[in-house]
Amino acid sequence: MGPSDQLRFGLIGAGRIGQVHAATIAANPETALTLVADPFLAGAESLAARFGGRVADSPQHLITSGEVDAVLVASPTPTHIDLIEACLDAGVAVLCEKPIDLDIARVDQLLPKVRESSVPVALGFNQRFDPAFADVHRRVESGEIGDLELLSIVSRDPGPPPAEYLAVSGGIFRDMAIHDFDMARFFLGEIVEVSAVGAQLFDPGAREHGDFDSVVVTLRAATGGMATIVNSRHSVIGYDQRLEAFGAAGLLQVANAPSSLVSVSTASGVETKRPYLDFFLERYADAYALELAEFVKLVRGEASNSPGFDDGRAALVIADAAQRSAEEGVVVHLEGGWSSR
Amino acid sequence: MGPSDQLRFGLIGAGRIGQVHAATIAANPETALTLVADPFLAGAESLAARFGGRVADSPQHLITSGEVDAVLVASPTPTHIDLIEACLDAGVAVLCEKPIDLDIARVDQLLPKVRESSVPVALGFNQRFDPAFADVHRRVESGEIGDLELLSIVSRDPGPPPAEYLAVSGGIFRDMAIHDFDMARFFLGEIVEVSAVGAQLFDPGAREHGDFDSVVVTLRAATGGMATIVNSRHSVIGYDQRLEAFGAAGLLQVANAPSSLVSVSTASGVETKRPYLDFFLERYADAYALELAEFVKLVRGEASNSPGFDDGRAALVIADAAQRSAEEGVVVHLEGGWSSR
Amino acid sequence: MGPSDQLRFGLIGAGRIGQVHAATIAANPETALTLVADPFLAGAESLAARFGGRVADSPQHLITSGEVDAVLVASPTPTHIDLIEACLDAGVAVLCEKPIDLDIARVDQLLPKVRESSVPVALGFNQRFDPAFADVHRRVESGEIGDLELLSIVSRDPGPPPAEYLAVSGGIFRDMAIHDFDMARFFLGEIVEVSAVGAQLFDPGAREHGDFDSVVVTLRAATGGMATIVNSRHSVIGYDQRLEAFGAAGLLQVANAPSSLVSVSTASGVETKRPYLDFFLERYADAYALELAEFVKLVRGEASNSPGFDDGRAALVIADAAQRSAEEGVVVHLEGGWSSR
Amino acid sequence: MGPSDQLRFGLIGAGRIGQVHAATIAANPETALTLVADPFLAGAESLAARFGGRVADSPQHLITSGEVDAVLVASPTPTHIDLIEACLDAGVAVLCEKPIDLDIARVDQLLPKVRESSVPVALGFNQRFDPAFADVHRRVESGEIGDLELLSIVSRDPGPPPAEYLAVSGGIFRDMAIHDFDMARFFLGEIVEVSAVGAQLFDPGAREHGDFDSVVVTLRAATGGMATIVNSRHSVIGYDQRLEAFGAAGLLQVANAPSSLVSVSTASGVETKRPYLDFFLERYADAYALELAEFVKLVRGEASNSPGFDDGRAALVIADAAQRSAEEGVVVHLEGGWSSR
Repeated sequence: MGPSDQLRFGLIGAGRIGQVHAATIAANPETALTLVADPFLAGAESLAARFGGRVADSPQHLITSGEVDAVLVASPTPTHIDLIEACLDAGVAVLCEKPIDLDIARVDQLLPKVRESSVPVALGFNQRFDPAFADVHRRVESGEIGDLELLSIVSRDPGPPPAEYLAVSGGIFRDMAIHDFDMARFFLGEIVEVSAVGAQLFDPGAREHGDFDSVVVTLRAATGGMATIVNSRHSVIGYDQRLEAFGAAGLLQVANAPSSLVSVSTASGVETKRPYLDFFLERYADAYALELAEFVKLVRGEASNSPGFDDGRAALVIADAAQRSAEEGVVVHLEGGWSSR
Repeated sequence: MGPSDQLRFGLIGAGRIGQVHAATIAANPETALTLVADPFLAGAESLAARFGGRVADSPQHLITSGEVDAVLVASPTPTHIDLIEACLDAGVAVLCEKPIDLDIARVDQLLPKVRESSVPVALGFNQRFDPAFADVHRRVESGEIGDLELLSIVSRDPGPPPAEYLAVSGGIFRDMAIHDFDMARFFLGEIVEVSAVGAQLFDPGAREHGDFDSVVVTLRAATGGMATIVNSRHSVIGYDQRLEAFGAAGLLQVANAPSSLVSVSTASGVETKRPYLDFFLERYADAYALELAEFVKLVRGEASNSPGFDDGRAALVIADAAQRSAEEGVVVHLEGGWSSR
Repeated sequence: MGPSDQLRFGLIGAGRIGQVHAATIAANPETALTLVADPFLAGAESLAARFGGRVADSPQHLITSGEVDAVLVASPTPTHIDLIEACLDAGVAVLCEKPIDLDIARVDQLLPKVRESSVPVALGFNQRFDPAFADVHRRVESGEIGDLELLSIVSRDPGPPPAEYLAVSGGIFRDMAIHDFDMARFFLGEIVEVSAVGAQLFDPGAREHGDFDSVVVTLRAATGGMATIVNSRHSVIGYDQRLEAFGAAGLLQVANAPSSLVSVSTASGVETKRPYLDFFLERYADAYALELAEFVKLVRGEASNSPGFDDGRAALVIADAAQRSAEEGVVVHLEGGWSSR
Repeated sequence: MGPSDQLRFGLIGAGRIGQVHAATIAANPETALTLVADPFLAGAESLAARFGGRVADSPQHLITSGEVDAVLVASPTPTHIDLIEACLDAGVAVLCEKPIDLDIARVDQLLPKVRESSVPVALGFNQRFDPAFADVHRRVESGEIGDLELLSIVSRDPGPPPAEYLAVSGGIFRDMAIHDFDMARFFLGEIVEVSAVGAQLFDPGAREHGDFDSVVVTLRAATGGMATIVNSRHSVIGYDQRLEAFGAAGLLQVANAPSSLVSVSTASGVETKRPYLDFFLERYADAYALELAEFVKLVRGEASNSPGFDDGRAALVIADAAQRSAEEGVVVHLEGGWSSR
């Protein structure tokens, strides 16, 4: 793969997740980082120095520069919609971090334009590309465990985010559970019913912002299959990321990722392992790389499993329904991708 | 322990669960089986031959014979209430299999009499005595994992019961999940909110009787802690019985009981173990023995952890709430042990 | 099974292992304990009170009483040979604890008489009957892992025995490793080469009596397959009993027996389990019961897998060879069951 | 780290292991690949194209070019000694793959020169740097499990090498077990006694060349601690690499590296995982990177744990002793690093 064949990427957002994407783009022989934009100039410059490319004056300049074949949007959520639209207008492919937006109305406003456009738009649901989750998905699809009856997801972060982050996060359903809503759709297809229960158990920040720090969600799919999702904003044992697919003929399980192959046995307990890997950058490192590879196929017009704008929208619809269910104590029904009751 | 100190037991019901109790009574040096009653006479006789005692003409005769210090009720659910009442009237201690009854009204009718009586009444929530669950409970109580935030229970039977059993079972919530509702109370105390989702996925019998074969229940306790319960009437991998207690400072997990210490690794997969033990008689054998030992203490007037009539009632209240929640798609609130909305 | 069909057992030796056998005999519906002999009279009486039978004046009286169909020898090793011979003379079947004797010359002296006699003689190699080991054996025999290339055994006791026991034990090879030598023969057949290394690492008693507290043995079988045996007289993590069979087509492993299904995860380590079960009475409880059942078949003239006198002799020959190998630093060759060099 | 601070590496040998080192050098920001030498010119060129640097005319030219600060020797074993000597003469640091040579006489000939020289010489015992093994080593050193009594290593390759490789490999002890001999020294210090047993069980190539395909080695250290090593040239379950350190106060275990977090349970078996990672390139990828990082410290004159020429020599002495032990059926004693008897 010579440089002339490489896809030229512009990266918008040089924060933590932006750095992951920059490293991934630099490591993939088919992609190169050519432009970086971030209001925090020093961050953008340091990132460009490490992973390649120049710093653009602004996201708008980056998109319309003619120097990028694709844009990776890793900026704060409120900017996503406008940046996607700008990419559509400029005819530049875009891979946008989740969620599209916190407001379904804004998403729906852009929807027709996305559908009419031929510009590739992909959403950053990286967990679909995790080798373990993807393996389970393939095996479920192959019929290895018969009809999928219950998908169970546990997702707990090591610790709650800063209160200022919570203030603009859109709440735990739209910010954190949205990954799991997408996984539920990935495994079970259309979701038709959402019941959610939330609690404020430990995080003063969540309490302050009217958010939950712990939630349990039950989904029902059009197939009849169900999903349970457990989320917590803290986990003293490390990043807790488990998934089970229970079917008529078997059970597929994804264990937590061990951080070491070593265990110790003593008089007080046996087979103790090191705490789990800390967070998503470590746990999903492979997933980011595979997500990018799949997006490259999409841009090249090849068969691709990249989730798209519609997937981003559908996950947000479920998140909204979960928020309402948890607040009002009712089961929320979804029809054709729209909430009803 | 000489025979003269042994508690003399009458057993009502010589079916599958009655046989477990008979064996347990015979094996405990502090207890002896002296009378057995069952409409199916041959069953009662064979059981008495194996585990001791004579066959009584009827449950009523057994209770009033003066030959038993305690009665173990293992007959069909509809008979429970009247048998408990007869024991109260005869002044004979009673350990009754769950549930007390399928109708909360009948339970509440007897409630004042139970409360006024000094006759020991215990309910057969054997899972409280399972060594693994009891160990987790002790450790949670000791503060080992901090505040309990989420209790997760998975309970799947090997296969659905016969349709004729389903017809009189009271439904999956009152028949199967009731164990888990009791466990939720055991770990979390008073339950104040119930959300349940049910599905008919595989069992024609369930469909025929308007019952679910798969359910997911979320409970909220007065402490703020939550519980998730997953039940299924089938499990091709064997009896699936898992429990997790997630707290602010750690996670306690109860794994499925291995049926063998052997694993095999080949070119097609590694560390394959034998399927899990088949069902509750094997999985909870120890629990039945410890349940009996605790009941003996109760009868002797010693400190005892036997769950009582109130516990049986409380679990049924939750089961009723779950049934309503699943049917109406609403969260059901409980106040002071009564359902409200 | 009526009492008239029960095999009447005499038990010689009411110590720790004698009590295990007494309980096993009492629990098996096909066997009954009728006589007990032990120089420590109070022990014999208490055992008889718990598990049945009367106390005999002496082992000799027990054997010739006409009141027993079979004798279980659980007395100290130096008495074994004479008791087996007395059983042969009296025409009473005998199940003798290992080892037959510490002196191969005494064993060989009795050998012709045993071979000529039709009286059933079985040796107490209980590990052959452990459900896990037996399962692995069956699967190896069935060809599931192809040719058996290496059998690996780890056997570590919780703590060293008292120095007075060591003084008469015959040394770690004849006392402890002898079980593993029998297992090696069970899996690999004839052993033709023995290399052993011993060390005095922690036990002053072993040092005092010229014994090792830690040994490593390598065996080669006539098939070409090999075995490694690791023994230690202490193990702070509990009774460490593992076995692996590595073959051309796979690996069968027997894990340590968990003492609980519970694991705990905290910030300092995850998946910590309770220490392993303490010792052989707990670990091999099932094995003792199955050993007895197999011996009953032998006595009844049915097909039986009970190891016999020859097996006891063969294990002792290997133990002697290991002792010499460890002392002299040479590999010892065995031919036709005799040590050569 | 600017390019001017980078250590310039010459790589001799562009085969499989050479490619691993090239990738590692390219990935480390402190090192750069500047020259590559290999008689197979196309291989050298392709490697240089991927990982940087030019192709040198010959190893000698590479070493004396003045364009490298350090040389990585990944060429066939017979070339190692001369290349190390050439590096010493040129004053260029060298990291040489194991073993130094198959002939201890040649090693001893160079020994004085190495000891007198100030040029850094390191041996490629990469397993010392495996995060799991290194963690166990640190914990043993810290006293976490008390005195180390037994180190147990299992190392099985997926499949036997080609017969032509075996012909020049020096035999399984010098070629394969040498890693484990180094690990034994790493954990236990000076080895004073070697017993080895070898077998030809499955590989016609081994038989043809008078080599073993399966070996078991027992080592005794000057501390009294022992080590067992199991090697096989095949393993149908994938690369089998396990290590246990058993001490007076506990047991540290390194499990096989799972190739996936997924397990499956069905009616025929539960918790089946994917086969283990295939071979050393995958299993020890991290180890190669950490080995290089440690060598960089050595070259820079910083404190470093790189094993040196003496370590390479000591492992070879043990390998020679194992070969003799296995051939002659004797225990071989080592004194002061020399075999004696």
